[in-house]
Amino acid sequence: MNIQKPYVLFLGDVPDQLAAKTGDGIADWRPDWCIGQVRLPGCGADCGLPDMTVAEGVAKGGKTLVVGVVNQGGFLPDHWIATIVEAIASGMDVASGLHARLGSFPAIKAAAEEHGRTLHDLRHPTRDFGTGKGVKRPGMRALTVGMDCSIGKKYTALAVARELEARGVKSSFRATGQTGVLIAERGIAIDAIVSDFIAGAAEWLSPANDPDHWDVIEGQGSLFHAAYAGVTLGLMHGSQPDALILCHEPTRTHMRGLPHMPIPNMADVFEPYLTLARLTNPAVRFVGISVNTAGVAPAEGDRIMGEIEQKFGLPTVDPIRQGPGRIVDALMAMSGA
Amino acid sequence: MNIQKPYVLFLGDVPDQLAAKTGDGIADWRPDWCIGQVRLPGCGADCGLPDMTVAEGVAKGGKTLVVGVVNQGGFLPDHWIATIVEAIASGMDVASGLHARLGSFPAIKAAAEEHGRTLHDLRHPTRDFGTGKGVKRPGMRALTVGMDCSIGKKYTALAVARELEARGVKSSFRATGQTGVLIAERGIAIDAIVSDFIAGAAEWLSPANDPDHWDVIEGQGSLFHAAYAGVTLGLMHGSQPDALILCHEPTRTHMRGLPHMPIPNMADVFEPYLTLARLTNPAVRFVGISVNTAGVAPAEGDRIMGEIEQKFGLPTVDPIRQGPGRIVDALMAMSGA
Repeated sequence: MNIQKPYVLFLGDVPDQLAAKTGDGIADWRPDWCIGQVRLPGCGADCGLPDMTVAEGVAKGGKTLVVGVVNQGGFLPDHWIATIVEAIASGMDVASGLHARLGSFPAIKAAAEEHGRTLHDLRHPTRDFGTGKGVKRPGMRALTVGMDCSIGKKYTALAVARELEARGVKSSFRATGQTGVLIAERGIAIDAIVSDFIAGAAEWLSPANDPDHWDVIEGQGSLFHAAYAGVTLGLMHGSQPDALILCHEPTRTHMRGLPHMPIPNMADVFEPYLTLARLTNPAVRFVGISVNTAGVAPAEGDRIMGEIEQKFGLPTVDPIRQGPGRIVDALMAMSGA
Repeated sequence: MNIQKPYVLFLGDVPDQLAAKTGDGIADWRPDWCIGQVRLPGCGADCGLPDMTVAEGVAKGGKTLVVGVVNQGGFLPDHWIATIVEAIASGMDVASGLHARLGSFPAIKAAAEEHGRTLHDLRHPTRDFGTGKGVKRPGMRALTVGMDCSIGKKYTALAVARELEARGVKSSFRATGQTGVLIAERGIAIDAIVSDFIAGAAEWLSPANDPDHWDVIEGQGSLFHAAYAGVTLGLMHGSQPDALILCHEPTRTHMRGLPHMPIPNMADVFEPYLTLARLTNPAVRFVGISVNTAGVAPAEGDRIMGEIEQKFGLPTVDPIRQGPGRIVDALMAMSGA
């Protein structure tokens, strides 16, 4: 991938912060690449970057407008097109992780052709994959899985990967979503793969490696989300993880985008994940629980994590507030380091 | 769908009968539409139709050459292209359920343009789908699920749907694979859907219906197949089945295409299917077991089915040899008919 930096993040008028998780991810993990954010009236998200117009972004040296949002279905609202066209006409490239291809909108396509700018569709695979084979590969693999989608799987994987790197452990972060791909500048948006090839693409993404090398694989969706569980399972089978890390967010009351479906009981999620994961790695086990406590007071977060740790006997941490050290310790114990 | 009949089935030189399951399905369920089969040297499959050349097929009135095979990855071997081009040049349309688009092969595309023939790519969706919502829809739904893939899920669903129709029950067969789509002349090849939309496509496929209407949904893959379980799960969540029918083939020793992975124990498959299916329909249960006994002697088939029925307490039938009556009885009991 060769996306020109720095970036100006475009947040449109998404209703809430979760809908800007692509923007948040880039701003949090690649702050040096971001100079500002462009928001439309009514936008309910804020990635903590200076607000600016497209013209101001160009004046400050912005090279690429990154559409920093996610939504169910990955569509591009019509009333965002003018901003994207303006960015192109002002000399910026555009990158998007939506399912809708930028070039499928005639005005965007025409502007890019007229001004000689590049459109990056991160969600669209640039190669073909085979079907999954399920043959065990050498190397160690950790996969983040969730109580729900949009619950901290990417942040947890990034934090674990960063800590492994800091400890000098051979390791790789494997991005499986558009935001992760933007952060890592490699990977596959697995939910955009034709479904017959999910597991095959996941196998390709984390190839055979040294026995003491850790792939830290960004999970997708949730086995308990009515829309995305198929993606979650195919990714898990292809990843054949040795270690699962369960991700949780204690203020969540219902599954993301499905107000009629409650969050499962944590006690009920371990066995289904393990039963299914054993198909491609019988040795799989949970090594820790990652809790995003940003939505509660620190003391309450500590209380929640203490209760979870006592109940399930697994290291339970907020990987951002406290760091993922105790989970990384558990990984090191598994690989004999 | 408007595919011109009658059909000539093209089997290429596939190695075995399972690889010709599209051809078998059409020949078995729509025999009136098929006039013959074209096979290349070394072909290990036989759909029981008269062998003929492309020229003979055209002379007998064949309007469409149907590529009647499946393979892992859905590719089209290069050495089959000449036969397809010959059919087009002789005046036939071509239909294929492979992932590879017919028009992506320059020689096929050029021939179709030159001779004004139509190329039907059944595996490619012709519309967009939303993501799954998981909201319970009225109507009753039965879904076939498998110990493995290619194990009788389509035949079981077709047999059950035919029996429901014969009994005058309001019902619909819902095709989810290329062969089913060819037989039903409607449906979705669900494994060709972008993975984010599997459940959403399945919801679209079996919409809200009368409370006493049965959708009989063709299952895909297997929860225990390392390549395809994601497709299986997404289809199951979107289908929100009331009734599951487990499909089995007693001579199968390993998962299709994965010689290192054994068939699971039947006792171990019910709970994972039910646990996951309950997410979108807490009332789901197994209503029967469908055994394809074509590979064993009738007495041995009876013995196997008797043993399974005694062990698991579910009506166990070969829907082709004996008919699916006892499973349909169980469905009728569920819907109060």
